This record gives sequence, structure tokens and C-alpha cells, in this order.
Amino acid sequence: MKLIPEDKKLYIKDLKDFVGKQVQLECWMYNKRESGKISFLQLRDGSGFVQAVVEEKDVDSITWDETKKATIESSCIITGEVVPHFKEKDKFEIRISKFEIAQLAAEYPIGKKDHGPEFLFENRDLYLRSKTPWAVLRIRNQVFLSITNFFHEEGFLRGDTPILQPTSCEDTTELFEVDYYGTPMYLSQSGQLYSEAAIMSFGKVYDFGPVFRAEKSKTRNHLSEFWMMDAEMAFYDQDMNEDLQERLVKRILKDALENCKQELEILERDTTIMEACIAKPFKRMKHFEAKKELEGDGFTVNYEDDMTTEEEIALGNKYGIPVFIEDYPFEVKSFYMKSYVDEKGVKRARCADLIAPEEAREIIGGSQREDDYDVLLKELKERDYPVSDYEWYLNVRKYGSVAHAGFGIGMERMVRWISGVHHIRETIPFPRTIVLNRP
Amino acid sequence: MKLIPEDKKLYIKDLKDFVGKQVQLECWMYNKRESGKISFLQLRDGSGFVQAVVEEKDVDSITWDETKKATIESSCIITGEVVPHFKEKDKFEIRISKFEIAQLAAEYPIGKKDHGPEFLFENRDLYLRSKTPWAVLRIRNQVFLSITNFFHEEGFLRGDTPILQPTSCEDTTELFEVDYYGTPMYLSQSGQLYSEAAIMSFGKVYDFGPVFRAEKSKTRNHLSEFWMMDAEMAFYDQDMNEDLQERLVKRILKDALENCKQELEILERDTTIMEACIAKPFKRMKHFEAKKELEGDGFTVNYEDDMTTEEEIALGNKYGIPVFIEDYPFEVKSFYMKSYVDEKGVKRARCADLIAPEEAREIIGGSQREDDYDVLLKELKERDYPVSDYEWYLNVRKYGSVAHAGFGIGMERMVRWISGVHHIRETIPFPRTIVLNRP
Repeated sequence: MKLIPEDKKLYIKDLKDFVGKQVQLECWMYNKRESGKISFLQLRDGSGFVQAVVEEKDVDSITWDETKKATIESSCIITGEVVPHFKEKDKFEIRISKFEIAQLAAEYPIGKKDHGPEFLFENRDLYLRSKTPWAVLRIRNQVFLSITNFFHEEGFLRGDTPILQPTSCEDTTELFEVDYYGTPMYLSQSGQLYSEAAIMSFGKVYDFGPVFRAEKSKTRNHLSEFWMMDAEMAFYDQDMNEDLQERLVKRILKDALENCKQELEILERDTTIMEACIAKPFKRMKHFEAKKELEGDGFTVNYEDDMTTEEEIALGNKYGIPVFIEDYPFEVKSFYMKSYVDEKGVKRARCADLIAPEEAREIIGGSQREDDYDVLLKELKERDYPVSDYEWYLNVRKYGSVAHAGFGIGMERMVRWISGVHHIRETIPFPRTIVLNRP
Repeated sequence: MKLIPEDKKLYIKDLKDFVGKQVQLECWMYNKRESGKISFLQLRDGSGFVQAVVEEKDVDSITWDETKKATIESSCIITGEVVPHFKEKDKFEIRISKFEIAQLAAEYPIGKKDHGPEFLFENRDLYLRSKTPWAVLRIRNQVFLSITNFFHEEGFLRGDTPILQPTSCEDTTELFEVDYYGTPMYLSQSGQLYSEAAIMSFGKVYDFGPVFRAEKSKTRNHLSEFWMMDAEMAFYDQDMNEDLQERLVKRILKDALENCKQELEILERDTTIMEACIAKPFKRMKHFEAKKELEGDGFTVNYEDDMTTEEEIALGNKYGIPVFIEDYPFEVKSFYMKSYVDEKGVKRARCADLIAPEEAREIIGGSQREDDYDVLLKELKERDYPVSDYEWYLNVRKYGSVAHAGFGIGMERMVRWISGVHHIRETIPFPRTIVLNRP
């Protein structure tokens, strides 16, 4: 009896609709407990997990022998009746009537004993089958869907920006170079500059794809290849920009809490703070206010500098909700940001980083963009950028310039926050860091 | 009066709900026709296009002077009443009461005269604002959404695969190399091998991102960077694979016809054949049958070879619906495909290319994958692949191997078919080819 989805296959996630019925499942056996004439098989098929019980008296000898023979991770096809789980409410198990091994797995390298993370990531292709990566990457899938749906509903066009770029958007010291038919090109650090050009046609656009940083540091926060969503909006100022970001983050959290209950349970994630983040308005404070606050809390702060890791963590802990830190000193920010001089004579960027609680730190960076041709040209020259490479980017300010703003959200940082895992490499299927690249 | 979406801004696409009302729009003037005391301004805001009429007698002298002064592509803020279009049913125009220039555009390089395509692509950032790219890239956006929604509804996990890969999946002569912390890595040609490992955890996965081919040819069919969707399914054979592809292609066409009416109209696309493709089952024929058919139609065919461009076009024209060409000679296909020997002793791949009509040619390539460890290992050795690099890929056949299949769909080829444009570079915002890379 293969019934449900369009591909006519029945999956574990659908079992609740088949209680009392005979079903057939194609799956893997990820664990087995044997107790004389009864065996308990732990099965998974990608959509979920289920326990199957087989008793020698209920089945023919071929089926019984196959269940005895089956090794961890063997693929199998089982037939049986869906029954309520013997003690857990709202869960189901299967009373097996037939069991067939599709392939008997070789001895599985990832056993019950504790492996170090290095071993697990050297065998990432196999480690992916464990419950933690399964749960984390399903949360990643949900975050992707939330972002896609959100921007569609808000009237954005998805406009893919190129990976191969002749110039750099952010820090030039962290570029990966490619020999492009004899000319050097660089792997994208951000699609932002391209999206700024695209809003002149489409109004509001976003891209969402891999970006690259040649990060020579080996920390739990760094990947050399990661996914970034960049949104740009025409006729937008920084306040509207922050409003949009707040709506997006709340949407992502809400969808994850609603649609990833099983995954969050597997990860033993306490969701109290995330729930508060949905309910309350986000905090907004100026960079100098944040520094002052931290100084009052005992930090030795530098008012002219970026926020440090410790400062971001402290602010996140203090407020327990996401905090927009606004108007950084222009010196520590990118050339494309709109600037102003405050009453104390400090040149500031109309920008905000969004700091998440629970040590998730910066999850979004955004700003209003400089929309004045002359101001931007001067800034490019002062920073010694090759102006001719930026001519097309300057065009955005030459032909119908508009107030515009945008922001970037790091997929992996967002997923790490929601899933509560420690190391960023847990949040992407095949991480690329300075050390491990196989597979 | 700024009312509608969550960002509280009114867009041209929403004007139909505001007939008889005063509205304010932030937009660009893409054209202007003046006739004494009346001017007709063509406006666009990214969401759509609208005509605005201003009469000297209705407005104050400042507004009148601003409309006279406004140059092509100037950004502007207008206020006026939404009224039915004076001759086109179901269209609306605006009677301007106030007109303000946000920025007066410099003389716009893309004028009314015909530019060659080279000029337009050298100025891609500006050419994006024209109606054709606007329409084509909105169709691209819709195709992206259709694919995302389809796979979500079919129970797939989106699993991103790495761009930086130590080994190659397809043709090794077309690789872009990257210096990765002193070790060579290659830009992805496909995420397929990674997705095969991922289905062992998630059952059904797809990825969708940029892939790269160092294509030294300069034709209307080639891009060096393009977007590819790869889907892989556990416990799937080639028939189920083709069923899934047919559902997906029909869904993409249906969504585009329903949601991109305005865009298809701009492109003057005759949709008769696309409609037929939704209504009729796709044709399925073996490679040798296709060759025989073509031979009967006067072609000089090679039964042992791939389909030629001309053959693909001829089959598409003949049937007027997509045609699955199944079971190519294994020799011309990739090492990872499942093979069998037919009754004539020819080794064949359990695969199919999907050929679309209207000269769109191959839009999908797919196959059942080899699931036997020894057969795959032998094939890798025969083709002189570095076996140690593929150890993790062989693991898929070592620990619970299953019948599995998958396919890849080229985003740009699909978009080109639907939009009916000639050159593939029209279908991506910032194309990367052997010649043009700025912006």
C-alpha cells in the first residue's frame, strides 16, 4: 500500500494517518535492540524516525533471519501495521510482518561511542545521517523557505548576482582569485553592488547564494564559503530598512518554532528567548549609547571602534532580544554607506548591525547607501579604489538616483542561533574551512 | 496616501485597487511625450509601468516646470488620481496633481535608437531597466519560485552543495581552478555527487545554485556561470525520475502562464505550444528509436553518438511537446549512471535527456545512478579517475545502498524557452561569458 504524496510513496512523516493499516516503508535501520524473541529496530527514511517491532512468533523464518542479520545503516523494505507507540503519546510504531534487506551495510564507522568533532567532519558524508545534522539542516531548509516566502510576499524580485566578480565589495585581503580566461576574477564576497544596480529596474530585489572569504582563522565562527542573503530597496531609508529586517527575523523565528518542533526537540533547544524575540519589539540604540551602556557595565570601551565579540555577547545577554546598534563611526564601515556628521563632529554611517541574544552575535549588517554621485566618488578616491572599475556602480547615482538601503543576513549564523549548535560548520551540509575540505 | 504592503508603500501593480483615489508614487520616468499644454509621462517603479498625464491648467507652475525639465530616467515622486486608461480596458493612468524630481538624470546612454546587443551588454546595469530584461528576469524569478515550491510540496530538503570542490563531477577540461590556501580546488560543475550522499540522510534533496564551465566557445547557448538545480531521490528508479521531471516542468509552465501574463505580453510570446505541453503527456522514446525516427526523416545519424543540436531541434519541432530521449549509449554519458547491456549487446545508461520544443533543446539531464559499489569502482578505474578522491562518494554504495536517481535542470535554458529570447545571456542579470564581464 503506497499511497500519499505525488510520487505515490509513503513516508514516515505520514504514518499518523495510517494507524491500524498495513504500510510499506523504504528506509535505513540506524539502530537495533534485540531481546530474545523480540527485536526493536530504529528506522529512518529522511522524513522522520520510527521504531519497528518484530516478534519471532509473528513472522516467517526468512523475515526473522533478515532482521537478525541486518547491520546498522542497512537499507531495507519493511511491511507492517502502524500502531500507537506503547508508551509515548502521539507517537507510532510498526509491528513488522515482513522485512527485506535492500543492501547489507558494511561495518559502520560512526558507532555508539563518542567521536571527536574532527572525526565526524572528516566523515561528513556519513555524519550527515546522524540526528543532530538531520535536525540542523532541516532548520536550515526552513530558514531558506521563510526568507524566500517573505521576500516574495513583500514584492521583491529574486535577482541572482554573479559569483565571478572583477572587483571586490568588502575586505580585499580575503579574496579568492580565479584565473578567468587569462584575467583575474574574484569569488563574490557579496552581491550588494549588483543588487543596487538592479533596484533601478526592479525596485526591491534580493539575492541569496554562496559568498566567499579567505579566512585564515580557525574559529567556530568562520567558514570560507557560506550563504548570504542581500536585500536592496529603492526609495528606502534606514528606519524602513530596520523595520523590514525586524519583520523578517520575526518571520524566520516564528516559522521555525511552528514548523520545526521535532527538530528543536532533537536538539534539546530551549525556545523561551526565541519566543520573546517574536513577541517584543527589537531594541534600537546608537553605537555611542551602546558603548556608554557597556562602559557603565564595567567594560573598557573604545568609542571609535567596532563592537568587540565580548561587547556583542554582553548586549545580547543584557536585553534578551535582538538589538540594532545604529550609526557606527564611518571609519570602521564600508565605503558605500551613507554618512553624516553628528553634533560632536564625528562622521557616522547610517547603518545598523543587528545583534542577536544567546551569544548569536551579529546576524544582520545593513545600511542606507550613499546616493550622491560626488560624495561616493570622493570616498572611492580617498580609499584608493580603482574608480574605473566602479563606473557602473556610480551610474546608480547618475541616472535617477534614489534614497536606498539594504542589508545582508548570514544564513549560517541565523541557523546556528535557532538550532543552538556551537560551531558554524554544523549549519551547512559540506563546510569549507581552512582545514577540512573532503568530501 | 501610502497604503498597501507591509512597508506601507504604494506600488504601480496595486493601482487597480485605487481607481478614483489620490495616490503618491515613487518612480522613474522612462519616457515622455509632450504636446503643447499636455504631457504624457511613462513611469515605472519596478513593480510595473503606468502612464501619467499632466495638463498645464491642472497644476501649479512649479509642477509644470518640473515635468518639462525631467529627463529620461529621472527619479521622481508624483501625486495624482488613478483613472481608467483613456482607451485600453483594464488599464489605468494617473492624472498628475503634483510632480517632484528626486534626481534629474544625466543624459541617458540607452536611447530610442537601436543599439546592438554588444552595446547593451557592455551597459548591462542600465540595459536591465528596459522592458525586455525586466520581463525576462521576472519570469526567472517565477521559475525559481515554482521550483522551490514544487520541491517543498514533494517533501524534498533543500541541501546546499559546495562551490569549492576538490574533484570534478563532469568534464574535467572545463574547470575553473582556485588557489585554496595553497591547494587547488575547482568551481562546482554540479552538486550532484554531494546530493547523492545527502539523500542517505534526507531521502530526497535538491540544490539550486551557481555552477561553472570554462566554456571557450562564444555561442548563444553558453555561459561560464549559470544556475543549476540538481535533485536526487533515494529509492527511485528512472521511470519515477521521469514522472517527477514531467510534473515539475508542467508546474513551471503553468505558474509562468498564470503569473507572468504581463511579462509574456511584453515579450510578445505566443504561448500555444507551452499550453499544449501542460495539457499533453510528454513523449518518451529510446535513444535508438529517436535516431531511427530521424533517419527516416532524412537525417544521417550516428547511433553510437549523442544527439546533435539539429537532431534535438528536429525532435522538438516534430512532436511539439517535451520528449524524453532514454537510454543513451553509456560511452557518451557520465561514469555515475546506472548501466545495462541491451539485447544487441550495446551498453546503455538508464538515463534520459528532456528535449523541449521551440528550439529550446535539452532542458533536463537525468539518470538512475549506479548503486553497486564494485561496478562503480570499476568504472572509476577504467576512466582513470583518482579513486581515493571518490572514497566518500563510494560510501553511498557501501553503507545501505539504495536504488536512486536524479536530474539537473538548467535555469537559464528553462527561462529562455519560456521567455522566447534568443540568447542565453538575456536570462541572467549579470551574464558571465568568455567576452563580457563588466559590470
